[in-house]
Amino acid sequence: MYLTARDSRERKDIEVESMAELKMTMVGVRDLVGEGEILGDAGFICESVAVLDRAGPDQLSFVKDKGYFDAARGCSAGALVVPESIDGFAGNQLVVENPHASFGLVLAWIARERRRQPAGIHPSAVVDESAVIGEEVTIGAGVVVREGVRIGDRSVIYANAYIGQRTRVGQDAILYPNVVVMEDITLGDRVVIHGGTVLGAEGYGYVQHEGRHIKVPQVGQIVIGDDVEIGALATIDRATIGQTTIGRGTKIGDLVHIAHNCTIGEDVLLLPSVAVSGSVTIGNHAVLAGRAGTSDNITIGEGAMLGGTSVAFKDVAAGASMWGSPARDKALQMRIEAALSRLPEMQRELRELRKKL
Amino acid sequence: MYLTARDSRERKDIEVESMAELKMTMVGVRDLVGEGEILGDAGFICESVAVLDRAGPDQLSFVKDKGYFDAARGCSAGALVVPESIDGFAGNQLVVENPHASFGLVLAWIARERRRQPAGIHPSAVVDESAVIGEEVTIGAGVVVREGVRIGDRSVIYANAYIGQRTRVGQDAILYPNVVVMEDITLGDRVVIHGGTVLGAEGYGYVQHEGRHIKVPQVGQIVIGDDVEIGALATIDRATIGQTTIGRGTKIGDLVHIAHNCTIGEDVLLLPSVAVSGSVTIGNHAVLAGRAGTSDNITIGEGAMLGGTSVAFKDVAAGASMWGSPARDKALQMRIEAALSRLPEMQRELRELRKKL
Amino acid sequence: MYLTARDSRERKDIEVESMAELKMTMVGVRDLVGEGEILGDAGFICESVAVLDRAGPDQLSFVKDKGYFDAARGCSAGALVVPESIDGFAGNQLVVENPHASFGLVLAWIARERRRQPAGIHPSAVVDESAVIGEEVTIGAGVVVREGVRIGDRSVIYANAYIGQRTRVGQDAILYPNVVVMEDITLGDRVVIHGGTVLGAEGYGYVQHEGRHIKVPQVGQIVIGDDVEIGALATIDRATIGQTTIGRGTKIGDLVHIAHNCTIGEDVLLLPSVAVSGSVTIGNHAVLAGRAGTSDNITIGEGAMLGGTSVAFKDVAAGASMWGSPARDKALQMRIEAALSRLPEMQRELRELRKKL
Repeated sequence: MYLTARDSRERKDIEVESMAELKMTMVGVRDLVGEGEILGDAGFICESVAVLDRAGPDQLSFVKDKGYFDAARGCSAGALVVPESIDGFAGNQLVVENPHASFGLVLAWIARERRRQPAGIHPSAVVDESAVIGEEVTIGAGVVVREGVRIGDRSVIYANAYIGQRTRVGQDAILYPNVVVMEDITLGDRVVIHGGTVLGAEGYGYVQHEGRHIKVPQVGQIVIGDDVEIGALATIDRATIGQTTIGRGTKIGDLVHIAHNCTIGEDVLLLPSVAVSGSVTIGNHAVLAGRAGTSDNITIGEGAMLGGTSVAFKDVAAGASMWGSPARDKALQMRIEAALSRLPEMQRELRELRKKL
Repeated sequence: MYLTARDSRERKDIEVESMAELKMTMVGVRDLVGEGEILGDAGFICESVAVLDRAGPDQLSFVKDKGYFDAARGCSAGALVVPESIDGFAGNQLVVENPHASFGLVLAWIARERRRQPAGIHPSAVVDESAVIGEEVTIGAGVVVREGVRIGDRSVIYANAYIGQRTRVGQDAILYPNVVVMEDITLGDRVVIHGGTVLGAEGYGYVQHEGRHIKVPQVGQIVIGDDVEIGALATIDRATIGQTTIGRGTKIGDLVHIAHNCTIGEDVLLLPSVAVSGSVTIGNHAVLAGRAGTSDNITIGEGAMLGGTSVAFKDVAAGASMWGSPARDKALQMRIEAALSRLPEMQRELRELRKKL
Repeated sequence: MYLTARDSRERKDIEVESMAELKMTMVGVRDLVGEGEILGDAGFICESVAVLDRAGPDQLSFVKDKGYFDAARGCSAGALVVPESIDGFAGNQLVVENPHASFGLVLAWIARERRRQPAGIHPSAVVDESAVIGEEVTIGAGVVVREGVRIGDRSVIYANAYIGQRTRVGQDAILYPNVVVMEDITLGDRVVIHGGTVLGAEGYGYVQHEGRHIKVPQVGQIVIGDDVEIGALATIDRATIGQTTIGRGTKIGDLVHIAHNCTIGEDVLLLPSVAVSGSVTIGNHAVLAGRAGTSDNITIGEGAMLGGTSVAFKDVAAGASMWGSPARDKALQMRIEAALSRLPEMQRELRELRKKL
């Protein structure tokens, strides 16, 4: 999930100008990070950032922990954010408590700079006169804001996004281009939604009548807590009557589907391509790895872990670690998968035994 | 697929104003539903609707069948739509033949009210002068309607949707925001397409030539029957030459993929995240549950059922119920999955037997 | 992946005007294809194209190889593109070396004609004054082109697409409606991106801190080589710091997800619904069939083949053919799947053996 020295392997042939421009002295970096001791030249200018094994003499990189100290000694970086002084590294160092997190702050500053745009409402946006727009809000070209919408201070709505009737967007939220948020949805503060994601389509609800499928209109809502981030092209469906809810701090990947009437807890991780069926409850701090899924009407307990591509067809206990499809206790599933590789052989052995007897 | 008492469990802490506003007397509800006998106060005003266990004294809910009678007796709802008089429920009752369906009509009325918008073409929409637009059509801001398009009466096209050259949209259709319908596509009457869905991208067609992949342009069409509903962010690809067809009344979930040259029958259910490969034929009334899939060039027979996440690699007989990946007869697959849990043990037992002999 | 006689089976009941209009003589077709010998009437006018078993007396079709010669003799097509003269076919023939490829050129001509639109910037597009737009570029209604963008000659940007700051689009590229390409992305020449696809959302990168998930901003880039085609509603995430790269000639299906920091080689095939996790390397000419997937941080070797819905949890050797989830050598996996169907029986047999002893 995070950058490693490996990330940039075999990419050295591609020539593109550095996009991670920083142009900041070591002192500037320390002030930005808010802590740390500078070893070396405090006035050294970090032109940009890079991963450890690609960083050049004018670039800043970071060392996560002791496992990378040897790599650090051999690298060409001009400066490093480090957990402790690294003997044998010739460049400048900023010693901090958590280099990973500190470097994240540097990246956040870069991201903010590269995406900076002036506040204000683009003349081609269509904002209904009944909408209440906060201070320093940015509304891009072609955005449509419907009747009764409220948007909190400093939020940024990118081009061609759509915000339906009576929906509320918190403060400091970001909606990337072409995001669709339908009517009667509540987004918390600092919510981030990446391009093309659709919130509030109608859940898949039909009843059968004489062999035909009759629509059950979905008139419920969606409530998204503070600090939730949602990847690109995800879909979260509105509830039939009540609410589909996503708890504070939960992080949702690209192409995730969350069906109607789900209750997702706080600080949950739903990695890309996860699919959560209707009326599922997921406890706080649970993790569904890439493309994991669930049957409908089940509960995934607090802190439970569902492995990549695993699918839970029944309730998962709090804290459990499950794997496979259908999902089983991870240790058992690992033994099953090992045994499976020998299954054709077992079949042969069994046949021989039966012949003997 | 439909609301149950369970739907709203553990959501009581979230305070949001009721979005399912009704403000209708029992007589009004009966008139809306078109049948039923009122027990209690015919003038009682149902302020809004809610699921059974969350409904308050000014709300209307419903009771599907006898299995919920006890829950109904203990609930606080001011009024209920019921299949027969429930003794011991203190509120007002509307006795109807099919409460599920009748309550659905109430929800449909609410949905219509909440999404109501005036007919007409928004000044920022770009509608080609050769397009033929029916009566009382609504075309939202930023919509693009290309040359030769025809849109039937009363259809609603939401903001920033795109309708390509010569495409025809039937009557009473709804295209939600950012839907893309490319050229030469036919949509029937009452077709509903949720946000961001793309119809008519080119199917995945390449031929290899000296180690490179040469594009086979896809110049066919898509024909979508009446009463088809398609969820958010689904993709249906145009045929290579002929048509990709979706039969009348078929319901397609979010993030479904239907590849080029498929023939999907009538009243088929394709639940969210289903993927149908190229040139597949699916018979009427078949059901592919969540994330089910198919290999290409196969036939799924009429009324066949493919379980959640199951993948058919070869033809499925009409009426068959299949499970697993590769999909097998459901009963067999259930036995296999049960046996798998004992596989490591079987391996050990087999080893012991072989030692003995 | 390509049209067969089967493609159009059972579609004869649907009446739609032919959309694959050609109106070209046999001589015109030969000139378009650039080679071939005409047998029959060189002035015969091919009104449109169709697949073999649906082609009528005024239509052109093609015969891939000898396997279709009997079908050709029985068909009603007015003209055929063929690999050699077919005795017993009454219509006109164009004999070429590779009918498949030649017919593809005819389809390409039709596609170009049907989608033709005048070059120029639509008045409702919002193009920043700092953007550099090439010659004969088409920019549709509602398109947003941000600061510092460069677009190469003859590229076509469809309605409501978004191109972020400093992104470069090559020559002869096509971006279909509602495509989102965020900032600092490089697209090669002749790149085609279908509707709604999102390039450059931030990868799924968080670090845990006191039980909460802290965002690691993703400030890297994406570099897409020449001749890459990307289907509808796919997502490719920007790298954390370096680049996510897609090599020349690689073809990507609908709803594919490529996570941050991946390195995809040249001429790779990623079929629809494939999901590639973070920091994965895929070698040239590898094929991931429909809905195949990978764990993160692994390498798929050059020319390797991962079967439909198969998931690689560890490195795959160059040239290997893998199947299943977890992916195993295809031959072994086939034996396992065959043995699995007998597993319940094996369990019973084993039980009996143990009783005997």
